[in-house]
Amino acid sequence: MTEITEADGRFLADFETMSAFGATERGGVDRQAGSAPDVEQRRWMQQLLESHGLRVEYDQIGNQFGLLETVPGAPFVLVGSHMDSQPTAGRFDGAYGVLAAAHAVFRLREQLADAKLNLAVVNWFNEEGSRFVPSMMGSSVYTGVLPLQTALDTRDPAGVTVREVLADADMLGESTGPKAAACAEIHIEQGRLMESAGTQIGLVSASWAASKYAVTVTGEQAHSGATVMADRRDALLGASMLVVYARELASRFDGVLHTAVGKLDVYPNSPVIVPSEVKLLLDLRCSDEAVLAQANELLRAKIDEISADARVEITSELSHEWGINPYQPEGVELARAAATDLGLSNDEILTVAGHDSINMKEIVPTVMLFVPSVEGISHNEGEFTSEADMLAGLATLTEVVRRLAHGSLS
Amino acid sequence: MTEITEADGRFLADFETMSAFGATERGGVDRQAGSAPDVEQRRWMQQLLESHGLRVEYDQIGNQFGLLETVPGAPFVLVGSHMDSQPTAGRFDGAYGVLAAAHAVFRLREQLADAKLNLAVVNWFNEEGSRFVPSMMGSSVYTGVLPLQTALDTRDPAGVTVREVLADADMLGESTGPKAAACAEIHIEQGRLMESAGTQIGLVSASWAASKYAVTVTGEQAHSGATVMADRRDALLGASMLVVYARELASRFDGVLHTAVGKLDVYPNSPVIVPSEVKLLLDLRCSDEAVLAQANELLRAKIDEISADARVEITSELSHEWGINPYQPEGVELARAAATDLGLSNDEILTVAGHDSINMKEIVPTVMLFVPSVEGISHNEGEFTSEADMLAGLATLTEVVRRLAHGSLS
Repeated sequence: MTEITEADGRFLADFETMSAFGATERGGVDRQAGSAPDVEQRRWMQQLLESHGLRVEYDQIGNQFGLLETVPGAPFVLVGSHMDSQPTAGRFDGAYGVLAAAHAVFRLREQLADAKLNLAVVNWFNEEGSRFVPSMMGSSVYTGVLPLQTALDTRDPAGVTVREVLADADMLGESTGPKAAACAEIHIEQGRLMESAGTQIGLVSASWAASKYAVTVTGEQAHSGATVMADRRDALLGASMLVVYARELASRFDGVLHTAVGKLDVYPNSPVIVPSEVKLLLDLRCSDEAVLAQANELLRAKIDEISADARVEITSELSHEWGINPYQPEGVELARAAATDLGLSNDEILTVAGHDSINMKEIVPTVMLFVPSVEGISHNEGEFTSEADMLAGLATLTEVVRRLAHGSLS
Repeated sequence: MTEITEADGRFLADFETMSAFGATERGGVDRQAGSAPDVEQRRWMQQLLESHGLRVEYDQIGNQFGLLETVPGAPFVLVGSHMDSQPTAGRFDGAYGVLAAAHAVFRLREQLADAKLNLAVVNWFNEEGSRFVPSMMGSSVYTGVLPLQTALDTRDPAGVTVREVLADADMLGESTGPKAAACAEIHIEQGRLMESAGTQIGLVSASWAASKYAVTVTGEQAHSGATVMADRRDALLGASMLVVYARELASRFDGVLHTAVGKLDVYPNSPVIVPSEVKLLLDLRCSDEAVLAQANELLRAKIDEISADARVEITSELSHEWGINPYQPEGVELARAAATDLGLSNDEILTVAGHDSINMKEIVPTVMLFVPSVEGISHNEGEFTSEADMLAGLATLTEVVRRLAHGSLS
């Protein structure tokens, strides 16, 4: 990047203001979906959008839209991401994409004379899924893969429903949202490939394949001191063997397969009782479908082995399964041309993480862009992307949206 | 056992009534300290004791005493156990010992003409320590090893203090309780040595040595999908390796060493975040002090190895440490004579689990008896001891208390 323009300065100032919502002591944010900081930030975003002449509305699952209608009756280019966060997360994940979308639309306002489509900034509800499961809730309802009532009836661990938090915030609309003709999203990479290669703009061509398991390990309660070791059926032992094996599996297919157990709950979780039940979520994500199939097979065999060794029952339910899932190649080419025309280094990349655009690309042509994450740190208060990289991303997104508005992909 | 007497029938009927407090569907109980079922059961016990002419009082940490004062001014034989339980536990653990103590005193009421000591039934507050940590709270305050204010200020996970639950139940007294001269407790074995050997009465001669660790594994939050495996510092991986190793350690010293991790908490415990912190409690219990020292050394070395392999920090704090801890040999001989005179098979045994009598034996001569547990099942709704074994235990306890009241050990 060369010099910082006045418009760039406004973006950076707004990013600073935005990062104060739910700010944590160590430089991160805590803005779980529907929490007070999430709601306050949405109100602030509403004011920002309205101050630039956009009309704000909420659909029936609380997705927030800022509409700029210059072509009466035409459908919309939806551009945005999500502003909710994981607990103790970084300030760039999702939020950067929504603010960049807003500023891209602000910049394009005077360049839409020949546009064929209208523009809508979107802040999807509950992308993270940490408080209300599943993740990508707002875009899943919008695209019809999750029933509205199921989503609204979802409860957080305290028993509060999505319907209640949205109604309390006055963000529960009645519409199904604006009709989309195309979509664009920009996000931080959350990995370190771009930083290592010195790439400014990532052209996301596909998402990794994934298998996600909900696993229940069942043993039997026993006195943790008095019970003879040979009599124990320790659910936590079985679960721990599985966690260790998941890492071994990733090492076996180094670089191609990522595995994780992020959530694990022990019952009854008492210092003096051998645990009778452990529930855990085990994910396999893979850039090669053949490797993923092999890993799934090895995992199933290992589960049988652990069941026998630890004298526990293990049931695993495949809760999500998808293959390598491509974005439209025309969208990748459009993004490549936009970045190249701006003189920015760019390359194709896969996304390992899920994004709302993965839902959107199933219904309309969708462009997904990445900017670099320093050291790949993400879902962590230390998450960081430089101002120069944020501005390069904003410039590219603006150019992509301009082309989409003029009908390049539709 | 031969025939069931009328007094035996009354004991069994009371045991049936008592087991209804906090009863679970699968035949167990849930009566954590200070919970509604625990308080209701204590009121029922108060009525039972008073209906047999005992005076009931509560000391300053809520221990419940039923006093039978036939020797004015003399100290007491304290006989009892605890009526609180783990969540989803069995109905024999602790509760059997308090009811047996009550009935032993009822039976002795007319045989105390030459007694040197008074009798007190005791129901110790919060032996289990599942809701309020630490365990053995009531007997620890009574014997002076835990400061009263610390105990009263202890909070449960919902933030409620011990002081509050005891005051709400009207069970917070002002005294330090009756002065003890001797103590007796009967409890289920919670193991299967007695059942295997066909022993009716266990004469507890000592408690196992133990080392208990509070372990914190610290890694770093990261995206559970996008983050390169080699960059991860996964606290749950480190913790799982430790759980697996604890079992390996027990196998290495088979039969002599018991190990367990009963409680393990993951942070932030989100499906999409590599955990940054796991806290767990790891116990080593051992019938041989030299083996325990060796196991502690191996564990420390393994912790260093796991720290390096999983790229995590592990801190372990030794929260409890004690050696093989004997009961007074004179008490064991008194119990042996009592059981033998009743024609009951008996043998010495060690206790692996903690009991209130372990506190009491530090201040007065203390006799600890065991009755068999079917298949050693304990801290489980399936816990079971036969009526015949319960009645044999009651008969022995009655005889032990009779001898203690007449000054056999004091």
